[in-house]
Amino acid sequence: MSEHTFSIEFQPIGIRVIYSEPITVLEAARQAGITLRSDCGGKGSCGKCAVQIVEGSSSPLTRNEIIFRKGGMLQQNERLACETILDENAKIYIPSGSLSAAQVLQTEGILKSVDVHSPIRVEFLSMTPPTLAAPKSDLENILEAKPGLYFENDDQALFTLRKISPQIRKQGWKAYAICSQNRILTVCTEEPARLLGLAVDIGSTKIACYLMDLTSGNTLAAKGVPNPQIAYGEDIIARLSYAMQGAEQEERLHSDLIRAINQAAEELVKTIGAQAEEIADFCMVGNTAMHHFFLHLPTRQLATSPFTPAIKKETLISAETIGVKGLPGSRIVVPGPIAGFVGSDHLAFLLASGFGEDGVVRLGIDIGTNTEIALQKGKRIISCSTASGPAFEGAHIRFGMRASRGAIEHVAIDQNGKARCKVIGDGEATGICGSGILDAISEMKRSGILNQRGRLDAENSNVAKDGEGVRFYRLLSASDGQREITLSQKDIDQILLAKGAIRSGIAILMDTLQVAAQEIEEVLIAGAFGSYLNPYHAIQIGMLPSVDLGKIKAVGNAAGAGARLMLLSEEMRQKASALAQRIEHLELNTYPDFELFFANGIRL
Amino acid sequence: MSEHTFSIEFQPIGIRVIYSEPITVLEAARQAGITLRSDCGGKGSCGKCAVQIVEGSSSPLTRNEIIFRKGGMLQQNERLACETILDENAKIYIPSGSLSAAQVLQTEGILKSVDVHSPIRVEFLSMTPPTLAAPKSDLENILEAKPGLYFENDDQALFTLRKISPQIRKQGWKAYAICSQNRILTVCTEEPARLLGLAVDIGSTKIACYLMDLTSGNTLAAKGVPNPQIAYGEDIIARLSYAMQGAEQEERLHSDLIRAINQAAEELVKTIGAQAEEIADFCMVGNTAMHHFFLHLPTRQLATSPFTPAIKKETLISAETIGVKGLPGSRIVVPGPIAGFVGSDHLAFLLASGFGEDGVVRLGIDIGTNTEIALQKGKRIISCSTASGPAFEGAHIRFGMRASRGAIEHVAIDQNGKARCKVIGDGEATGICGSGILDAISEMKRSGILNQRGRLDAENSNVAKDGEGVRFYRLLSASDGQREITLSQKDIDQILLAKGAIRSGIAILMDTLQVAAQEIEEVLIAGAFGSYLNPYHAIQIGMLPSVDLGKIKAVGNAAGAGARLMLLSEEMRQKASALAQRIEHLELNTYPDFELFFANGIRL
Repeated sequence: MSEHTFSIEFQPIGIRVIYSEPITVLEAARQAGITLRSDCGGKGSCGKCAVQIVEGSSSPLTRNEIIFRKGGMLQQNERLACETILDENAKIYIPSGSLSAAQVLQTEGILKSVDVHSPIRVEFLSMTPPTLAAPKSDLENILEAKPGLYFENDDQALFTLRKISPQIRKQGWKAYAICSQNRILTVCTEEPARLLGLAVDIGSTKIACYLMDLTSGNTLAAKGVPNPQIAYGEDIIARLSYAMQGAEQEERLHSDLIRAINQAAEELVKTIGAQAEEIADFCMVGNTAMHHFFLHLPTRQLATSPFTPAIKKETLISAETIGVKGLPGSRIVVPGPIAGFVGSDHLAFLLASGFGEDGVVRLGIDIGTNTEIALQKGKRIISCSTASGPAFEGAHIRFGMRASRGAIEHVAIDQNGKARCKVIGDGEATGICGSGILDAISEMKRSGILNQRGRLDAENSNVAKDGEGVRFYRLLSASDGQREITLSQKDIDQILLAKGAIRSGIAILMDTLQVAAQEIEEVLIAGAFGSYLNPYHAIQIGMLPSVDLGKIKAVGNAAGAGARLMLLSEEMRQKASALAQRIEHLELNTYPDFELFFANGIRL
Repeated sequence: MSEHTFSIEFQPIGIRVIYSEPITVLEAARQAGITLRSDCGGKGSCGKCAVQIVEGSSSPLTRNEIIFRKGGMLQQNERLACETILDENAKIYIPSGSLSAAQVLQTEGILKSVDVHSPIRVEFLSMTPPTLAAPKSDLENILEAKPGLYFENDDQALFTLRKISPQIRKQGWKAYAICSQNRILTVCTEEPARLLGLAVDIGSTKIACYLMDLTSGNTLAAKGVPNPQIAYGEDIIARLSYAMQGAEQEERLHSDLIRAINQAAEELVKTIGAQAEEIADFCMVGNTAMHHFFLHLPTRQLATSPFTPAIKKETLISAETIGVKGLPGSRIVVPGPIAGFVGSDHLAFLLASGFGEDGVVRLGIDIGTNTEIALQKGKRIISCSTASGPAFEGAHIRFGMRASRGAIEHVAIDQNGKARCKVIGDGEATGICGSGILDAISEMKRSGILNQRGRLDAENSNVAKDGEGVRFYRLLSASDGQREITLSQKDIDQILLAKGAIRSGIAILMDTLQVAAQEIEEVLIAGAFGSYLNPYHAIQIGMLPSVDLGKIKAVGNAAGAGARLMLLSEEMRQKASALAQRIEHLELNTYPDFELFFANGIRL
């Protein structure tokens, strides 16, 4: 990859994240799992997200920042995280006052509290040089140096001896065994500088990779890379169809994934001066299709009813078998999918969000191309999956784009029915991202531009018809000297289908467990979109049930946090397995009156 | 390989062997492990080795055969096995009267008596089609179809599911698991026609491969192929030196070996209309260097004191890891070497020859480039290895050649000191093979042409000097209108060094266990040369201790027989492991007065 990448290190937390596109400090921190105070929703108006740029250059001071500095609300060495854009290596210091009080490190917090207990450890081996009188074989010598250690099978012993037999002769019969519990992964003659692990959350759109210190439990570096499978289809169904074309296509979807993970891992270890071959343990989560693509399992069966996965239990697969670079003999923990369309990423999300730990009435939603929803009440946890499509990620929306510089991220509509837009980076708008779309729909509904059935009001002065007779609403008008940005009836329909899919899923789970909206104690929203989403508007348009806003919490990449928990702690892996057993999966399509729930879900 | 090959099937035994060079029926039978009566030593004079050519063409009747037919000692449909040469596919019927009484199927006999109990078996799996209500994963479905069965690890489950998941959907959820005990090797939708195994004895010169029926225990086909490593050195030391040149060279020695075994296996399965991918189990024996080359273990350590092998215990290595073609998931039983220069081939020989089963005072000798010797007395079994060199195989001997058409195989010297030679195929002699050399030395000694120190008598009319002043003895003289074949003093020195190495090894073992020659109850000689060797002459020249001739038995490729036993029977594998523990290995070089033993060993 010749792609431009740069890393941002956050102090005093000590996490380093790699990016490939210009990004605000606020968003960069979100991706690192750090939630900064942002009472104004990143509009640059509350001044709470102050940070210090310790190293590296950044975008010039904005008007808002100049105002805050003049007013003494921002120190001379501080910037607003939401207004500052980075495009090269930087080190950021976050004053404790800027950390979100309510949501301080939602998932990172869980990571901090986990009892780190990785199965990976190092044993020093002092062997006896063989003599003609006692010509002990190398294998005996290794195993007798530390009784109790063993190779999982003779193939593993063979791989190790091929490498180590010549080396131990040069190194005075001293060596180090890297073990998972008592199982020897490999033997080396130099003491490992550290024990590294890699946690991976394979999303349909993005792959999140975390390089972990297995001893301290610290996240050493993190990186999100695009899922290269996008080239073969935007959503899972398209990729499953592509895989059905033949073995070569299926193989390509597998190998592209592995290559992307290996490249990300290489970049991560580079930031700490290590090698990918030092990574001793892995945990991989993802939806069921990603799980199968990753393991190179047949995927045709995931595309047709009854959508049976080939493997459902947690597996331990040799990294070498899969082609993932790592320590010789290392294994990848691959938690099993819960069902055909509810993957181990959802399990990881639930694990990191405390499902199964208490009896709190808790709703968990992971919004993506497929949205997974879980509801807990007492001892029961029920989950479902719904095809919400990529509209919230800006796909299939005419001016849709990702949340990056130039995207409209917030919209308010004034008394005249005219939109006021907040653009990321404060420059000219080039499109609109998911949170902006949600705001727009909510505001259009409030101001009557959209009726309850989601139709645009033809009478409004900002509504017009395009050449094909499709109505649209002008967010930004060319007549104001700006680039024209619109939302068409088609765009709105896409969004309503997506929100309808999510709402009907939630409603069916609530119906199943007989939970009323006011009973819900906690709503956790995971995923990139969840961090942007304005809970007020989400309730206004009927995407979320009507709960107190304070109960709604964005938890960032909770699946990635769950994967890290499982990597760091055997107890957490056991908890995850137990949780997977407990979760009841519900097939929405087979639910009585499903169509009615869906029709209601679409309404505004 | 574009090499010409043909197969000979022996009836009523039912073994088929593949050859690539013209061969006498007698020798072909020997290679198949069948010992025919041959009182005259294959000279065509006793008429005992009568066989019927049921199918295929053969060399024309010889003078001897015409005489026997005329005398009514040979039926019209019979040929003498020692006089008949085959060069294409044939089927031979062996009348029971032609089978050697004393040595009837020495090793094949052991194979017949073994209680066949292969760990490989087939289980029928009837699975439950998954439904939306009960979406059981494929892995659960397979394992629940026959409780108790398991995959050794998740990698194995993964390999199987990659293949079988689409197939079971087409085949109505019925399948067959091929298991080793309860461990599933693979799952297939068609019931296997048979369970095949491959036993391999990797010699430095020749690789013997046996295709076995794991249910009946029958040898279905056999083939000996040249060890392609010969291209990198004739003996083991030369190959170890070559391997020390670098990783690429070491890799080449490994991969050439694997390729040769795979090619041989392909040819063997072709004879029964099967595929190499049907071979479900393997057993491989060989000397320590071959063991390491086969497993691609580092070999440098085998070339220097204390000659420590990397692995000494029996290993079970996945065929795929080594690159050997076979059933997915299949494993290769690789018995461990006894010591640096005493390999698992020797262990297999001892197993097949009854060592460890009784208290008989038994001497076992496997003559090759390295000669391994074992002596049993009561509960003790002691073994050693000696570098006898390739002289007995015709190497480093001016007119030396293998035992094939044109080789002098027997020599007698008349009162005038003139040699009378028996040539294989009765045509013109082109060289002399091991048994001929042994006869010649013995006869030259008897007739005084060689003195006790092995020097040629300059006075003898058949002894002359060549251009470099080296004396030689004329076996066949150009003056008789024949191609001149000679044995030089240098040739004789080579042979005496070889026989000295063997004799001193035997003497030191006898000295260690305090065994006198007359106490020895059985002398078993393995290896190709052992089958040709004339025991009388071997004693005459002092290669073997002076025992009754009847106690000396050629056992053919006993190592190959031992490998087959271990393949067919788990009990035999356990016996082999126990035997390996019991064998005391003696380093000849460290034995007191070794030089004296060696000096005595060389004398005639």
